[in-house]
Order: sequence, then C-alpha cells, then structure tokens
Amino acid sequence: MAEAAKKIENHKNALERWRHIFADELKQTDEVIMNMTSGKAKLIPELVGHLITSGGKRLRPILTIISAKLCGYEGDRHIKLAAAIELLHTATLLHDDVVDESDLRRGRKTANSIWGNEASVLVGDFLLACAFRLMAHDGSIRVLEMLSDTSAIITEGEIKQLMAINDIKTGEERYLDIISDKTAQLFAAACSVGSIVAEKSSEEEKALNKFGMNLGIAFQIVDDALDYSAKQEELGKTVGDDFREGKLTMPVILSYQNGNKEEKHFWERTIEENIQEESDLAQAIEIISRQGVLKQTMQKAKEYAQKASFSLKDFPESQEKSALMDLAEFAVSRPY
Amino acid sequence: MAEAAKKIENHKNALERWRHIFADELKQTDEVIMNMTSGKAKLIPELVGHLITSGGKRLRPILTIISAKLCGYEGDRHIKLAAAIELLHTATLLHDDVVDESDLRRGRKTANSIWGNEASVLVGDFLLACAFRLMAHDGSIRVLEMLSDTSAIITEGEIKQLMAINDIKTGEERYLDIISDKTAQLFAAACSVGSIVAEKSSEEEKALNKFGMNLGIAFQIVDDALDYSAKQEELGKTVGDDFREGKLTMPVILSYQNGNKEEKHFWERTIEENIQEESDLAQAIEIISRQGVLKQTMQKAKEYAQKASFSLKDFPESQEKSALMDLAEFAVSRPY
Repeated sequence: MAEAAKKIENHKNALERWRHIFADELKQTDEVIMNMTSGKAKLIPELVGHLITSGGKRLRPILTIISAKLCGYEGDRHIKLAAAIELLHTATLLHDDVVDESDLRRGRKTANSIWGNEASVLVGDFLLACAFRLMAHDGSIRVLEMLSDTSAIITEGEIKQLMAINDIKTGEERYLDIISDKTAQLFAAACSVGSIVAEKSSEEEKALNKFGMNLGIAFQIVDDALDYSAKQEELGKTVGDDFREGKLTMPVILSYQNGNKEEKHFWERTIEENIQEESDLAQAIEIISRQGVLKQTMQKAKEYAQKASFSLKDFPESQEKSALMDLAEFAVSRPY
Repeated sequence: MAEAAKKIENHKNALERWRHIFADELKQTDEVIMNMTSGKAKLIPELVGHLITSGGKRLRPILTIISAKLCGYEGDRHIKLAAAIELLHTATLLHDDVVDESDLRRGRKTANSIWGNEASVLVGDFLLACAFRLMAHDGSIRVLEMLSDTSAIITEGEIKQLMAINDIKTGEERYLDIISDKTAQLFAAACSVGSIVAEKSSEEEKALNKFGMNLGIAFQIVDDALDYSAKQEELGKTVGDDFREGKLTMPVILSYQNGNKEEKHFWERTIEENIQEESDLAQAIEIISRQGVLKQTMQKAKEYAQKASFSLKDFPESQEKSALMDLAEFAVSRPY
C-alpha cells in the first residue's frame, strides 16, 4: 500500500487514484468490450472506439471490480460482468443523447451528432445485446435476472423522466424515484454483482447493494447540480442542458419551492411553458445561487454519500473498503 | 382436425387459419406481454397497447408455439419464450421506425409519429429488457445465449443495411447477408426455441433452425417486393418507403443489373445520388414491371420457401408440420 499511495499522489482525485490502482482489471474490461465489437460492421468499432477513448469515468465497472475483491473473489468472472455493466451504461448514454438531442458528452461531440441518430440507436441496441451476451456466456441466471430487471428499471426511469419534463409540480419524492431508477439501480447492481460472483452471504450483498444505491443517488444529485454550476470545459458536456430541456432536477425543485412570486413565475415561464430567451440560463443560475439552493442540493447529496459509506460498516478494513469510501467522497466533491 | 378445418374456411389466408387454431396460445402470449407492461409508467402500456392492438402478424411467436408442439412439447415454457421473441421483434420495429422516420406501420400511424422519437427509443429499450427478463426467469442459459446472439446479429444486420443505403453497387450476396441478419435469424431462433424447450436432438433443432432461416429470407424478399407492388391499404405501411430511403433491395438490385443505360442512370440518380422527384416512384415501379424483375424476385423467394419446407422432410406428418408448410407457402403468396 505504501508504494501505491506514493504513486497515486500524482492523480488529482480519488477516482483517478483508484482507477490507477485497478488499472489492470479496467484494461481487461475495456478489452472485453473491444473484443465484442471487433470484426463487426465498420460503424460499430468506430463508434465504440469513440466512446471508449473519450474516457468515461468507468465508475460502474470499477465498482464491480472493487466489490468483488472486497468480498475476497479471486477469479475473473467479475471482468466480464464489469464489461457487461459498462455496456449497459454506454448503450443508455447513446440512446439518451438521441432522446436529449445532445451535442456534447465527455468533452467531445456526441455520437449522434457525428454519425446521426440512426447509428446511435442501432449501435446502442447492439451494445445492449452484447451486454446480455456476456452475461449469458458467464452463465449465472441470478446475474441475468438482476441485470435484466435493472435494465428494465433504468428505461422506466428514463420514461418517467420524459413524462416529468416541463411539469413544474414535480416534487422531491418524484425526482428521487426517477433518479433511483435511471441511475442508482445500475450502481447498486454493479456492486451486488461483485458479491454474487464471490458467493457471499445475502447480508454482504444487501450492504453492497445499499452502498451502490445511495452512491448512485448522491452521484446523480451532484450531476444535476453541476448542470447549473460547472465550468463547461471541466464538465465535458454542455452546461445548462437540463434547463433548456425543461428537466425538473433538485436545484430547480428547491428553487421553485423556496422562491418568491417573481422567482416562481420565472420557473413557470422557462420550465413549465418552455418559453426561454438567451439570457435565461444566466438568470436561472443567478436565482439558484442567490437562494443558496446549490448548497442545499449538495447537502442532500452528501447525506446520501454518508448513508452509502455507513452501509459498509460491517466490512473489515481493507484497501477495497477504503476505495469504496473514497469513491463515495469523490461522488460529492467532483468538479465534473 | 376435421372440425378445425371447417372452422378455418372463413379465414382468408393460411396464417389467419393457423392463428385461429393456435388462438389460445397466442392469447396467452399477448397476456404475458401485457403483464410485463401493466403498472408501469403510463407511456409504456399506452404505447405497447397501440402496438398489440394494431394486429401484427404474430408470425414469430406462432413459429415458436408450433415448433414446440411439433417436437411433442407439452409444458408452458414456450408461451413465455414466444412472448420474449415477439418483444425482441417489437422493440426492433419501434427502433426501426425511428431510424427510417416512418409514419405508417400495420395500417396505423407509427408510435414515433404519435409519441415522438424519444418515447419510441425508450419504450423499445424497455421491451428489449423485458424480453431478457422473461428469458432469465425461464432459466435456460442455452436460450439466453441463442437469443442474445440473435439480438446482436439483428442489430448488426440493421447497421449493415444503414451502411448500404444509397450504395448502388450492393449486390445480391451483400443483400442476402443483410436480410439473413436483420430478419431471418430471429425466424430461425423462434423455431429453434421450440425444439430446445422440448429437449429434442440436435438434428431436429438444426432442421427447424434451417426452416426458420429460409422462411425468414423468403419472407423478407417478399416484403421488399411488396414495397414496389402492394396496394397501400393492403400493405398497412407506406408503399415506396424503401425507394425513398435509398434502400438496396432485391427488386432494385436485379433491375440495376439487368437495366439498359437509361435504366441504370435512373437508379444511379434516384438511389445513389438520392435525387428524387414526386413522379420517380411511379417510374421505378414501371421499370421494375417492364423488366419482369418482380417475377424474378418472387421466384427467388419461392426457392427459399421450398428450401424451408424441404428441411422438415424428416419430421413425421402432423398438424404442426402442415402448419409450418402452410406458413412457408403463405410467406410467398401474401398480399401484405
């Protein structure tokens, strides 16, 4: 550990440090993904290469890898399943960008803006199929049940989100239900898979599932805060996308709840009636900052991150436990 | 059989007759699908209801049902798996209509033209996940391997098709490769599943797989012929869609190959350069009819249908074998 600790000083945040420590496994995971796509119709490796090299966070596969090791697993099934989970996530991103008509993701042009919506829809479908192919070849019906359930729940969350767009009456409860489905469930599944391959008791699986669930909620709340606060070059995607799409996220929900008559009217015009002018994003950010709503939002995220860490209390101390605790901290302190 | 034969006289074609005979199983299949979507975000049952009641052919689930019975299966796993196969197909249709920007399917407005592309992409994803959920709950890794492979191959076929658009150099071989992937593989899998649940020998599975594969190719060739020959109200989708999209299908490939200089030039302008005027569809149909290309196309389809029937030669005579033979005949004689 001492040597590892030294090496990692150069990395600017906890995620990067731990990605460095688990670099071998993550590389193997990437290789599994690239192998699924090589030799296929040209568009597939091109588009997947674009996604892989655009350097996503790899948060979900690293959660599977660390969870498996935390549970003492020594085989290599977790690599294939980490790849399956990253594929499910990547497919969701591709389809999301079509749904959201986004132009920028991870600091680069989105696949749909380069290759068109058709390509994004179809390659997304291909990656979904590859994810289930990997699971089927792994051969665990339990994993297949969990991840097919998760896959359905993610999509249901996205659909709920689509139905909530422009609905200014959306409250905190409905928002939390949406982000639990669309984001946190996959974090939870990523962690659970680690304990399943290690054949651990249901207590350990439950604890890891709870960790992932709360981490995922914290992560998404911060994501939604960053859309009103991040620097575009750090965020790697267009700031203000949620605002322009009329998405009801935590900052808007709190700002509307706490707003005076004028502020309420602003949100009703821009989000509910979808009437926006060029200068409105700046004003939205100004209102949110004046009300102290971002601080409140971050406070809520921190509570979920703390819940996440707390759920690991019965695991003995280990490098892997430290890693998960660090990632919970990272989720609420990241600038991107 | 005598009574059944009487009843079915009222049905105008073989598919309808056999759908009537296997109505119970098909109804159960529909129920499995409806159950997967009830209680979900409102958009899901709405959209799925639209698809189910718009009366698709149900060719794929009926193939699974008949194949299972042909192999002497007496349980009920085939119902759930027939539903999974129909869900895979329905998800593909939803995403196809987004990719093709279609307005009409099965004689009704497409889901994307009513609910928007976002809804079609997401509900398609939901149905894909539900298909794998059903397979996982069924619990056969073999079925999961086969259908996840099939799902990947279908998408690869769609991607190959996307890449071949406007490519006038596309020949028969490349076309057959595309339609084998995008259409015939699922027909083959639908039939194979029947023998897998019945735990039949690999010979029987191979024969059924071959039947499905050849039937699927015949079916798709006819589909592509209908786009230049059908009456719109019978076809239930817009005639000329393939032409407007610049798709290289059998009629166009043969017409280009057999064409004189002027005809070749017509296809180069309308398909390769994608320069089309209002009157061009009528001219395309006129050229194809003048050259006798539709007849050639149908002849090729018939050869695949005959191959399909021939692959069943070792099965003893039974109601189910007659049904499959009838369906092969239907595939090449249908007006829609």
